[in-house]
Amino acid sequence: MSIPSFVIGIAGGTGAGKTTVAHDVAEAVGEPLTRIPLDNYYEDLSHLEYEDRSTVNYDHPSAFEWELLREQLDALLTGQSIEMPQYDFERHVRTDEHVTVDPSEVIVLEGILSLYDEEILEMLDLRVYVMTDADVRILRRIERDVVDRGRELAGVIEQYLETVKPMHERFVAPTKKNADVIIPEGSNRIAVDLLIDKIEAERGSSDLEEFDSDPDSELEEFDSGRGPTLDRGESGTESPDHLGSPE
Amino acid sequence: MSIPSFVIGIAGGTGAGKTTVAHDVAEAVGEPLTRIPLDNYYEDLSHLEYEDRSTVNYDHPSAFEWELLREQLDALLTGQSIEMPQYDFERHVRTDEHVTVDPSEVIVLEGILSLYDEEILEMLDLRVYVMTDADVRILRRIERDVVDRGRELAGVIEQYLETVKPMHERFVAPTKKNADVIIPEGSNRIAVDLLIDKIEAERGSSDLEEFDSDPDSELEEFDSGRGPTLDRGESGTESPDHLGSPE
Repeated sequence: MSIPSFVIGIAGGTGAGKTTVAHDVAEAVGEPLTRIPLDNYYEDLSHLEYEDRSTVNYDHPSAFEWELLREQLDALLTGQSIEMPQYDFERHVRTDEHVTVDPSEVIVLEGILSLYDEEILEMLDLRVYVMTDADVRILRRIERDVVDRGRELAGVIEQYLETVKPMHERFVAPTKKNADVIIPEGSNRIAVDLLIDKIEAERGSSDLEEFDSDPDSELEEFDSGRGPTLDRGESGTESPDHLGSPE
Repeated sequence: MSIPSFVIGIAGGTGAGKTTVAHDVAEAVGEPLTRIPLDNYYEDLSHLEYEDRSTVNYDHPSAFEWELLREQLDALLTGQSIEMPQYDFERHVRTDEHVTVDPSEVIVLEGILSLYDEEILEMLDLRVYVMTDADVRILRRIERDVVDRGRELAGVIEQYLETVKPMHERFVAPTKKNADVIIPEGSNRIAVDLLIDKIEAERGSSDLEEFDSDPDSELEEFDSGRGPTLDRGESGTESPDHLGSPE
């Protein structure tokens, strides 16, 4: 068990390829990585009747228990294990089971609204938005829900048009603005490599910090703005002589 | 002089912050970096009268001499120096001067249409699109052209609405699809760090290759798909069990 040195949030619409990116990153990084699916933090609605649970808007931010996610991410960040809730998507309830999740060097938070909550955003060292065209995303969703899970096509289309799409446009897509980088078209191998190089650079530098007793070298890292502590306030400003090309 | 190991293309609309990103990358990487501004490759229109040159659409792809850019990039990639053309934006002509540019380990091609030409795209190891809101971009352009260069506001607005904006929407914005990563809002420090970590990882691996006489280790690098030779064909595909979250 270790204190995590790097936390990545991966957001994006349904079918964007978030899970593939997270999976590819996990595979490349190897063992010491903790994946936190946002979906595990759906509010437990067992106090409602099944009929009522079925009509809940699961694409609205209020469907998630943010406080629990914040607490658990915070616990992982201080080196504590968590009891991650499990969710039953058929019955729309949290199950009685919990899975014990240990902190590891790298944590990946993954889900449509991973870049939504202000407090969660503060905990992320790298904010990634996976941007994929809406037509490709709905086709992937149909493939998953209809082909793989045997749901009715009509129901999938109705849910998509009534809640998934409007909630995406209202809550998910605007979180692009919170991203440090946007990855186009899901599992883009070169972009994933970029994330992996970043993780490895961070792990390398945290290893160095651990074994380095010279305070100056750490200071240097702060100065160059390369550590997880760097100043986010710099983004978006530029001096006039660095403006775009004179086209 | 060396054979370049890594070529980055940085595209995006006017005022997006491309130059700042290129500048920040150059500063962090240090000396061995060659910057190629696409603007230097505007077609020489000295055969036209000044009046006619003033009405040319400089935001259309046909305004650039692609063949020369391809040739010169190709020369740099094989370790040869180039005589880079210089452009006079006041008179809309190529000047008689050329600047000798030597190849270095890292090359950065920067300009609105850096991700436009198919052959150029093939030469790039990393394709970056800087995505900034149109309102922010026009404000930066006004700041540059009106405040810094003393041009008339009315003329800047007219040019923007008549050619810059429509050409951006028609030719520049679609090249987002060619990007490996999209950087939101110009000089985003964390995204720039990501690029730098990537460059350093590539430089590190090319150093290793240089000194490594064991062919297996090079093979391993190909397998993991981490080198500049990796297969771009993988992007955008994902197996059904890796589809997005069941929201």
